[in-house]
Amino acid sequence: MRILVSNDDGIDSAGIYALVNSLKEIADVTVVAPHKEQSAVGHAITMQTPLRVFEYHRDGKFFGYAIDGTPADCVKIGIRNLMSEPPDIVVSGINHGSNTAVNIIYSGTVSAAREAAIMDFPAMAISITSHSVKDFSFAAKIAKKLVLEIYKNGLPNGTMLNVNVPNVPESEIAGILITKQGKSKWDDIYEKRVDPYGRNYYWLTGNLVELDDSIEFDQIAIKNKYVSITPIHFDLTDYQMYEKMKQWDVEKLLAQKVEK
Amino acid sequence: MRILVSNDDGIDSAGIYALVNSLKEIADVTVVAPHKEQSAVGHAITMQTPLRVFEYHRDGKFFGYAIDGTPADCVKIGIRNLMSEPPDIVVSGINHGSNTAVNIIYSGTVSAAREAAIMDFPAMAISITSHSVKDFSFAAKIAKKLVLEIYKNGLPNGTMLNVNVPNVPESEIAGILITKQGKSKWDDIYEKRVDPYGRNYYWLTGNLVELDDSIEFDQIAIKNKYVSITPIHFDLTDYQMYEKMKQWDVEKLLAQKVEK
Repeated sequence: MRILVSNDDGIDSAGIYALVNSLKEIADVTVVAPHKEQSAVGHAITMQTPLRVFEYHRDGKFFGYAIDGTPADCVKIGIRNLMSEPPDIVVSGINHGSNTAVNIIYSGTVSAAREAAIMDFPAMAISITSHSVKDFSFAAKIAKKLVLEIYKNGLPNGTMLNVNVPNVPESEIAGILITKQGKSKWDDIYEKRVDPYGRNYYWLTGNLVELDDSIEFDQIAIKNKYVSITPIHFDLTDYQMYEKMKQWDVEKLLAQKVEK
Repeated sequence: MRILVSNDDGIDSAGIYALVNSLKEIADVTVVAPHKEQSAVGHAITMQTPLRVFEYHRDGKFFGYAIDGTPADCVKIGIRNLMSEPPDIVVSGINHGSNTAVNIIYSGTVSAAREAAIMDFPAMAISITSHSVKDFSFAAKIAKKLVLEIYKNGLPNGTMLNVNVPNVPESEIAGILITKQGKSKWDDIYEKRVDPYGRNYYWLTGNLVELDDSIEFDQIAIKNKYVSITPIHFDLTDYQMYEKMKQWDVEKLLAQKVEK
């Protein structure tokens, strides 16, 4: 089995190191990851400037390719140019911090796996629910088991799995749940500050407002110490609204004159 | 009516200028847009660094706020900090170049409207199908009519409209269609080049492979000179796979030992 691994925390992060070591037990692993942290970059790709590829070493040995781009760039150039044969599976993570609910939209970790799904490769993003993780071993083990499961069962083209693992000892894990993307969202606050030259600047912060009430949703599943697995795709069409809008008389807009 | 306008081509682009002038005929317009072009930034938001807000002038008058961030940043800070009252509608564009099929995932233009939808504001992204547009007047007129339509009918929370306008004279427009996100995708090519110091760099290019065959899809609708309106949302759950995966015996993974 050939696996391409990427992430958004950067190639030198502890999470990708734990993931790669675990997956190496079952597969040939190629690492293509951002040189620097790329959190919250969403599904950005680099077109206006070129990319550079650096060989990155760890423990005195070649570990993988570091790219001065986004997670989606890493997956694209990894598959198109750096791997000699295409991967069987693409895995992104282990992210430091959960990627649930609306954060799936902002997440660089998820975008790497989504890019693989767009390219018709089976893919998985995996995150652990804390920014200060001491022990990635359980998450790394679950990643390995899920990769074997995906290898066996396959995934439909265009579908990826978004996995979130609670940051608790393995003995406290309540179980594994298949979940839906939660509806929780951010109540944003821009902290207004003044620089040494008297000019304002604004720093984004905020609180996640929980809008889900059942462990059917990723956000509540992890809160209750379940490993959450959400199948996601990239067809954004709102089919319910599509059916409704077909009743709108849009053609009339062409002729209509607008009153000021 | 209060409208917030943003884009991804930057506050000095011709497309946003045409849009603002058209919408000013029917509403109070606040412009909050990126200082520099932010194409293909996906749904990136700025968290690791602060944002700065600049007052931008055009034709010798205050035109709007320029932000050194992404389109999604502009919508967030526009609504949270810069507008004295929340907008009735958020409009992003007019983008230079179409935003159909998989490009909806990469698009900064769409991300600005999607951010508004996440914040529960009615929103619309509008693009014209060419990078070298001479006349934005028809697209600007359609934008105005659709804004009035949205103002009258409303949109469900979390749904936005993604509008693409063919770059042809108004007399050649075939009509207006409600469409689905197409399945066309990019066959990426990284052009490998050598810099003056003998080092490689890679530049993303490629061809859009058309995988749709009906004007039900955005990509084919615009090709046939229809204005395409696609309702999109940000619930990425793949419900079909969700139902299937509930049959997977995932609990067994917790106990299972992995053979190397």
